[in-house]
Amino acid sequence: MVTRVSSLVRAVRHPPFDVIRAAHVELVVSDLPSALEFYSDLLGMIVTEQSDEAAYLRGWEEYLHHSLVLRAGPRPAVDHLAFRVSDERHLDVIADDFARRKCKIRWHDGERGQGKALRVLDPLGFPLEFFHQMQALESNTQAFHLQRGAPILRFDHVNLHVPDGEKACALWQELGFRVTEYISTDGEPEQLTGVWLRRKPTVHDVALTVGKGPRLHHFAMWLAEPAGVTRACDQLAAAGHAHAIERGPGRHGVSNAFFVYLRDPDGHRIELYTCDYYTGDPDHPPKRWSVNDTRCRSFWGTRAPDSWYEESSTVLDLDGRVVDTSDARVDERSEVLA
Amino acid sequence: MVTRVSSLVRAVRHPPFDVIRAAHVELVVSDLPSALEFYSDLLGMIVTEQSDEAAYLRGWEEYLHHSLVLRAGPRPAVDHLAFRVSDERHLDVIADDFARRKCKIRWHDGERGQGKALRVLDPLGFPLEFFHQMQALESNTQAFHLQRGAPILRFDHVNLHVPDGEKACALWQELGFRVTEYISTDGEPEQLTGVWLRRKPTVHDVALTVGKGPRLHHFAMWLAEPAGVTRACDQLAAAGHAHAIERGPGRHGVSNAFFVYLRDPDGHRIELYTCDYYTGDPDHPPKRWSVNDTRCRSFWGTRAPDSWYEESSTVLDLDGRVVDTSDARVDERSEVLA
Amino acid sequence: MVTRVSSLVRAVRHPPFDVIRAAHVELVVSDLPSALEFYSDLLGMIVTEQSDEAAYLRGWEEYLHHSLVLRAGPRPAVDHLAFRVSDERHLDVIADDFARRKCKIRWHDGERGQGKALRVLDPLGFPLEFFHQMQALESNTQAFHLQRGAPILRFDHVNLHVPDGEKACALWQELGFRVTEYISTDGEPEQLTGVWLRRKPTVHDVALTVGKGPRLHHFAMWLAEPAGVTRACDQLAAAGHAHAIERGPGRHGVSNAFFVYLRDPDGHRIELYTCDYYTGDPDHPPKRWSVNDTRCRSFWGTRAPDSWYEESSTVLDLDGRVVDTSDARVDERSEVLA
Amino acid sequence: MVTRVSSLVRAVRHPPFDVIRAAHVELVVSDLPSALEFYSDLLGMIVTEQSDEAAYLRGWEEYLHHSLVLRAGPRPAVDHLAFRVSDERHLDVIADDFARRKCKIRWHDGERGQGKALRVLDPLGFPLEFFHQMQALESNTQAFHLQRGAPILRFDHVNLHVPDGEKACALWQELGFRVTEYISTDGEPEQLTGVWLRRKPTVHDVALTVGKGPRLHHFAMWLAEPAGVTRACDQLAAAGHAHAIERGPGRHGVSNAFFVYLRDPDGHRIELYTCDYYTGDPDHPPKRWSVNDTRCRSFWGTRAPDSWYEESSTVLDLDGRVVDTSDARVDERSEVLA
Repeated sequence: MVTRVSSLVRAVRHPPFDVIRAAHVELVVSDLPSALEFYSDLLGMIVTEQSDEAAYLRGWEEYLHHSLVLRAGPRPAVDHLAFRVSDERHLDVIADDFARRKCKIRWHDGERGQGKALRVLDPLGFPLEFFHQMQALESNTQAFHLQRGAPILRFDHVNLHVPDGEKACALWQELGFRVTEYISTDGEPEQLTGVWLRRKPTVHDVALTVGKGPRLHHFAMWLAEPAGVTRACDQLAAAGHAHAIERGPGRHGVSNAFFVYLRDPDGHRIELYTCDYYTGDPDHPPKRWSVNDTRCRSFWGTRAPDSWYEESSTVLDLDGRVVDTSDARVDERSEVLA
Repeated sequence: MVTRVSSLVRAVRHPPFDVIRAAHVELVVSDLPSALEFYSDLLGMIVTEQSDEAAYLRGWEEYLHHSLVLRAGPRPAVDHLAFRVSDERHLDVIADDFARRKCKIRWHDGERGQGKALRVLDPLGFPLEFFHQMQALESNTQAFHLQRGAPILRFDHVNLHVPDGEKACALWQELGFRVTEYISTDGEPEQLTGVWLRRKPTVHDVALTVGKGPRLHHFAMWLAEPAGVTRACDQLAAAGHAHAIERGPGRHGVSNAFFVYLRDPDGHRIELYTCDYYTGDPDHPPKRWSVNDTRCRSFWGTRAPDSWYEESSTVLDLDGRVVDTSDARVDERSEVLA
Repeated sequence: MVTRVSSLVRAVRHPPFDVIRAAHVELVVSDLPSALEFYSDLLGMIVTEQSDEAAYLRGWEEYLHHSLVLRAGPRPAVDHLAFRVSDERHLDVIADDFARRKCKIRWHDGERGQGKALRVLDPLGFPLEFFHQMQALESNTQAFHLQRGAPILRFDHVNLHVPDGEKACALWQELGFRVTEYISTDGEPEQLTGVWLRRKPTVHDVALTVGKGPRLHHFAMWLAEPAGVTRACDQLAAAGHAHAIERGPGRHGVSNAFFVYLRDPDGHRIELYTCDYYTGDPDHPPKRWSVNDTRCRSFWGTRAPDSWYEESSTVLDLDGRVVDTSDARVDERSEVLA
Repeated sequence: MVTRVSSLVRAVRHPPFDVIRAAHVELVVSDLPSALEFYSDLLGMIVTEQSDEAAYLRGWEEYLHHSLVLRAGPRPAVDHLAFRVSDERHLDVIADDFARRKCKIRWHDGERGQGKALRVLDPLGFPLEFFHQMQALESNTQAFHLQRGAPILRFDHVNLHVPDGEKACALWQELGFRVTEYISTDGEPEQLTGVWLRRKPTVHDVALTVGKGPRLHHFAMWLAEPAGVTRACDQLAAAGHAHAIERGPGRHGVSNAFFVYLRDPDGHRIELYTCDYYTGDPDHPPKRWSVNDTRCRSFWGTRAPDSWYEESSTVLDLDGRVVDTSDARVDERSEVLA
């Protein structure tokens, strides 16, 4: 039977612009030195540049200026989620697209190491950035003698808490993203509780988790192999930071990822992520998981802690004000809410 | 300050017999085919020999006839825990030792693949077996093309639920075992909640966990590396047996083990265990962990499920009757009980 | 200084068709059962379908019908190298392109599991196939309980022996491929000895190794992690096939791959390949290695055996006749030939 | 057929003293800062103590003061090979034993971190040290956040070049060591070309390789898993020291070790070693390999370089003079020499 959901997830849109991939996040942190200690000293990311206001970090494989920005601010929040386009000229096309949607847009220039950038508050309430130009530096893929931590190699994806899965899925499809996997309820009507969408040919650049939103559930950094995930845990615990480990290590059914979820000193959630698979062929079929299959979130059956379902990072609008949230219509743990 | 506990754990006894190591367990299982499916098909152990009544299994590295016996019976229980001595003549010396302790002893002969064996019900209520002779077969250490599962390489240790940690520790020291690590309370008086004792130069052949006993908390099989632990989980889950995974994968603070705990179809607990370290020098210092240090049981801070603290396998006396249990005087989760 | 080579490798062409990736090879094997034993029993690939004439295999992650075809024939050779296009309509465009180059073209239909296919003998003498339609089957990414061997997950790339590196590089760029890494001589004029080109965002779909050609140096299958490479070696050796291991395991400087090269019973060379990195951004800079840097081919400095430089698989033209070869103008081991 | 060799390797002697294990080596190095850079900066060993004359290093698991001593001297050599006994009183018994053999003995006291030590020049010409007391320090098994390199965990064994395998085997058996594996010729008479002997229950504390001797072929440090071996290679190569990698990484048939052999700046050979198996049961059967089975030295069939067979470290007598060497009677590569 073709339900509305199964039809939705198979939709493929071809917008007149080309987003390559999710590229970085900018986090507001309440204590920049603590945040830097976490991402640089404990997790071993490279600090490309830093000041009293902000730090720009990247993974060991990355040749672009940054894939994570930590900005000092009064309270923890997400300043924006950034996506790279293949050509600078696509920025105007995207601006027109969001203007048509009555979204606020704003042009930025002069972010450290980066060229012109388009910021929008999308219809779901998320602060998105689109850019093309960024300063190229050395990659450190083979600087094995200097690498620390897992090590963290590159930015992989963002996972967003959204109240309405179908609406959010449709928006990201309109931006050219394709569904690779999804979780839905078994009842009538079928409802999405999670969706994974990609531009680059991995399982995702953006995942949507149904829950109170708009909020950032987590961003994820890519590691070379599962042993990196457990090494990161061992190093955190040895350094007295075992409390940063929220969930895992474990295997996701969805995406086949081997993962661990950490909470930084401000509570922002970072996933260390590896495994995944190739999804780049145009007929790659979206894979459905029933919300009642415990293996979709945790292949080994381990229940995620409630904090993992409930807590997320607040997002800011283009003027730096907290975006209001709405509750979800469905919860994976109990399916449809009253 | 030298407490009674810190003095106890440093004691070294030299009995007139030489137990080499923990060697195997014999489990009573309520459904032999299901148990065999679990240990042989799912976990990949080698079946040396089997009949309608019992199956004899070993790991891929082992050249002796068996390191696990599954025996069909009316309800799940532990028939005995077996230890190998270096010389057949030591059996009589051990028999005398337990006779002096007023323990029941019984001589066995003719177990498949095994020579003369001494069975005793020790003063704590555990059914122990001591033996020397066992049939030698081929080791399969390098039969990489045939290996399945983690793979499981060899028997490593047993972990016993005992109500009184100090008393149990003293008994095993009298049998020649030495303490390598222990967990104790911080209050007055200091009380043991866990002790690890060894004959072979690893962290342990026998561990004592304070809890309702005598019961067998788990037996452990040795794997080559952490990746084997996660591979076993992936394979169990893929085969539809994720429910067998009770705790982990994780890292113990104690012993440095990378582990996962599984429950077989009868609820018997098996640990897949790797890492550990060398302890064979005579001045190797026992390492203390405070019961309030969450890293001792779980280096990454993950709380063990209550079932892991509470459930254990019943043991049988020499006549096959269930041995009565007593409650513990202290509980690691809340320290001293009322 | 911008040399002719450094300018060449930076060229980006945008042909009016979209090749997604290298997809499979069809090998002529002199003894099909032996070849099947090698790829299926020893390396653990899945046999999708087989007959007396041919066998169709795929990796554990792949959902398309095949990524390797073994066809029985009188002597070992390469029947064709296949590339998938994103849209069936691109096949006619590609046919026109090769017709303009005066290349022989031929349309195929009815290969098992595959739709219409275009075969061409390219200007370098290689038998290429372009296709879009292929039967979709189940992926087995998470069938961990059934997986055997490394396991082999998916097809990754082909590596071609070509006499003239610059000419071959230019051809593949005209087909839309982009250079990610290259090896060149230090003298005047700078000459290419190796080039890596990609469509999918990894280091390569096609590599060109300067040497006697046209011949297929090897095709490569992707594994999840380095431990899979060593596991494959252990399993081959345990099964009495250590002679199949030609080079490695090792680390390439180029591509960062962790690899081993095997020779199948007919001498066809297969690489088991893992690690690599993301190359999908449009400004990803081609990385140069000097031919005098021993780390480019072998990061750890281990010299490749002469057979690895000299031996390769003969290719067939569209009528099944062996394509004549020419000697190379330069040799990495001694640079420019007399 | 019971040959002289097969009878020899099964001999078990019970001398009136207890050597626990091989414990450390003291190397004379021509440039102490270079040697320290190699062992500490590149391989990541812990420097317990150092001066202008000598440096004392240990692995991350070790709690004793040192397992490697580097002493500045005019030319590279081995000062002594050290073994730990279980009780200080055994030193006099060992001194008497070597005095009966007409060997030079000398008592040492005051080596940094160490108590009384007996030095002997054994009948084969090797400078051996026996000791019991050594200063206890912190183990760093779980200091994962500080660990560097593979990391190196502990000392494992020494491998000696000896001209006469049978004679050397008999001597080490008289010191209480037991044969676990051996390589011998297939002809008449059967001759040993390699023997592995142990005190601690691993494959060996001492290996004997037939060749020009007395010389130290290598000493070996234990790693947790194969990934540590390849990590060490990646780090050495990244730091510009790929030339230090002499052989491997690879798998030995003998001992099942996953290994790499490195040469330090003075040419001393160190093996990074992992895997191995338990050998502690008294009836553990010695395993024979034919010298014509290429898998014994290299399970994957890779030929060792000639340097690995021919080059070794010179040893010094008790007065610091180079001990003369004799050629071997048999060579594994060509069996019996003319």
